[in-house]
Amino acid sequence: MSLPHIGPQGGQTPLPGNLVELADYPAQHFGWSVENTVATITLNRPERKNPLTFESYAELRDLFRALAYAKDVRAVVMAGAGGNFCSGGDVHEIIGPLTRMDMPGLLAFTRMTSDLVKAMRACPQPIVAAVDGVCAGAGAILAMASDIRYGTARSKTAFLFVRVGLAGCDMGACAMLPRIVGLGRAAELLYTGRTLGGEEAERWGFFNRLCEPEKLLEEAQQFARSLAQGPTFAHAMTKKMLHQEWNMGLDEALEAEAQAQALCMTTRDFQRAYRAFVAKEKPVFEGD
Amino acid sequence: MSLPHIGPQGGQTPLPGNLVELADYPAQHFGWSVENTVATITLNRPERKNPLTFESYAELRDLFRALAYAKDVRAVVMAGAGGNFCSGGDVHEIIGPLTRMDMPGLLAFTRMTSDLVKAMRACPQPIVAAVDGVCAGAGAILAMASDIRYGTARSKTAFLFVRVGLAGCDMGACAMLPRIVGLGRAAELLYTGRTLGGEEAERWGFFNRLCEPEKLLEEAQQFARSLAQGPTFAHAMTKKMLHQEWNMGLDEALEAEAQAQALCMTTRDFQRAYRAFVAKEKPVFEGD
Amino acid sequence: MSLPHIGPQGGQTPLPGNLVELADYPAQHFGWSVENTVATITLNRPERKNPLTFESYAELRDLFRALAYAKDVRAVVMAGAGGNFCSGGDVHEIIGPLTRMDMPGLLAFTRMTSDLVKAMRACPQPIVAAVDGVCAGAGAILAMASDIRYGTARSKTAFLFVRVGLAGCDMGACAMLPRIVGLGRAAELLYTGRTLGGEEAERWGFFNRLCEPEKLLEEAQQFARSLAQGPTFAHAMTKKMLHQEWNMGLDEALEAEAQAQALCMTTRDFQRAYRAFVAKEKPVFEGD
Repeated sequence: MSLPHIGPQGGQTPLPGNLVELADYPAQHFGWSVENTVATITLNRPERKNPLTFESYAELRDLFRALAYAKDVRAVVMAGAGGNFCSGGDVHEIIGPLTRMDMPGLLAFTRMTSDLVKAMRACPQPIVAAVDGVCAGAGAILAMASDIRYGTARSKTAFLFVRVGLAGCDMGACAMLPRIVGLGRAAELLYTGRTLGGEEAERWGFFNRLCEPEKLLEEAQQFARSLAQGPTFAHAMTKKMLHQEWNMGLDEALEAEAQAQALCMTTRDFQRAYRAFVAKEKPVFEGD
Repeated sequence: MSLPHIGPQGGQTPLPGNLVELADYPAQHFGWSVENTVATITLNRPERKNPLTFESYAELRDLFRALAYAKDVRAVVMAGAGGNFCSGGDVHEIIGPLTRMDMPGLLAFTRMTSDLVKAMRACPQPIVAAVDGVCAGAGAILAMASDIRYGTARSKTAFLFVRVGLAGCDMGACAMLPRIVGLGRAAELLYTGRTLGGEEAERWGFFNRLCEPEKLLEEAQQFARSLAQGPTFAHAMTKKMLHQEWNMGLDEALEAEAQAQALCMTTRDFQRAYRAFVAKEKPVFEGD
Repeated sequence: MSLPHIGPQGGQTPLPGNLVELADYPAQHFGWSVENTVATITLNRPERKNPLTFESYAELRDLFRALAYAKDVRAVVMAGAGGNFCSGGDVHEIIGPLTRMDMPGLLAFTRMTSDLVKAMRACPQPIVAAVDGVCAGAGAILAMASDIRYGTARSKTAFLFVRVGLAGCDMGACAMLPRIVGLGRAAELLYTGRTLGGEEAERWGFFNRLCEPEKLLEEAQQFARSLAQGPTFAHAMTKKMLHQEWNMGLDEALEAEAQAQALCMTTRDFQRAYRAFVAKEKPVFEGD
């Protein structure tokens, strides 16, 4: 597994709260670019439909963990190169080795992939998946674990695990998918591994929007930019509370939200919004 | 905050179990009427699209708490005057003061609004929201926290908090909205504050039904009346168990329902239904 | 209550892990047949639209419990005879006696019906409901508690409990139905007992698919057969984890899935799938 160094370089003064800058992060196993605080991750082995490997899993996990401390990234877009999103774990590079691994090795692998999802849910930035073409196996999980999903009519999403003899309980699918599309539909997708077309995925609430393929990335980035220009401290709290309240009782969730929102009311963005409203202007948020 | 006296008047003999009569409750900050055990709350500052104020929040909270002991109200309709449901917390009367408050003050406010939702979920009466026109911010929450939502095609529901620099975790939205429309759609609504039109809201399951604007209130009241004429002890148990089972394991929920339903089988309404069936008549329920 | 003997006959050597064979199980209160490891349960009192009785409840509970140890059943289809699925608890044979029962008797009954649902969720086989015609009361619960639901356009599903003066919290409905169709739609169905037509049920995600009535059973069995020919050890894990993660936090669910999937990676079916992929063949799964 690769462990590229992410964070303050030796000799630099650490930023407050150990904040780091990630715009120039030299990604090794996927594309990475940051423009106007919107980062785009591009899975980019298009000749294989952008499979994941041991190395790209680990680097994605580490990068999403680092994003929790990034001061220059306010939203993330995940996309694939060449008209496909992601074909999941590579059969030759991942499935083959797994068939020869002992239990400690297997668990180290499944925990790594789960840790990627944990890191995606724990980072403060909203993640927008831009899904075209093949979106299969762990690729479908990356889409599922994003906050917002833009898709195309021609996209093909499949929770394929059953096709390689495995269970649907991979990387949180039995927990997250029922909450996105409902329990009955999630059960069907997980038991069968069947392909969910783009229009059906939109009808079920898996996709938030369908785009033309040639405009997909641009529209996903534009949406991410609109979030990045919003009150990002508040966005991060929205994301955190969706996570925190996952299995709270409703009364406890209400108290948790009372505290979280009171906290947001102390931010400058709240002041800015009020002043802009009074002045009949559009607020300019800064995320603090 | 207003604390109007709700409950037995001095000198009166308390009703059994501290039951109270609310038909003549003199509401100060919204309309209140009770007809045939169906109460209608009308948010009625139509020139401002029925915003909430510190006073109306507090009075609504106290009234919904009192409804737990009301013997003469069996269902509640929430509506707005003048073609709009509710524009949420008034910017001048609420947002402005909040920007100048210290943390104890802020938390007192967010707890008050959360307590309103807790009271709506804790009162035994089913609540039917009749949503036309603007349904924004805390107004969208009042609709969300109701049991049933009737809407109109022209209605505009928006969880606006982000537009004033705040998080989507307001008054239980991160807990309740994903369970109504699914996690992906809820995330979009909460991150963006965008307007959800009436037809889309029906398609997503936010609205149970779309009505013509001029018939909306009547149809919501008619539906509430049909519930009020049903087995209201059982309705209250349905509402309570939807709340209780919010974060139970499934096996525990099954035991909880076994107890709750056995309890309902001791009611006279259960006997009445059986006798009516045998006699090929329509049962007349009395709620005991 | 009937307690037919299910399991190894006296004198036989028990199968490993107390496994039993159920193909020849002599069902007393419904039809039972097993073909190619797909069992079909047929509720078969068509002249009364296949109601449940004390005896059939108990036998179904015991049979689903026994299925946890069955070595010759890999998927289950539940269907009704004569164009209807199930009319629920028989008014004369169940409701009448219940109106005369004391609390220990009532609780024994509601626990028996809840135990049937627990057994349906605990058995390792996916359950496919084939729903035509009337699907009411406890019949609607049997459909709801299945993993997959095939329906017909003419089918009529109704959570009727309120019509006999009872609450919607029957056999897990307040826990399961909101996760299948969303909280708002579930509340409406449970408060009103209204009939949900087949097309609406498909639109809401209650039905996974609509079939022509004359092809319904065949298509449900064909689907069950495709599951039975899949990696059934993995299917059972999918079902188990959907249950286990019901009220886990998301991070805990991710760790639970990491363990469960690592476990599945030790199966021969995983090896078979990989070898078949490399050989460009279709894998033949054996469930071990």
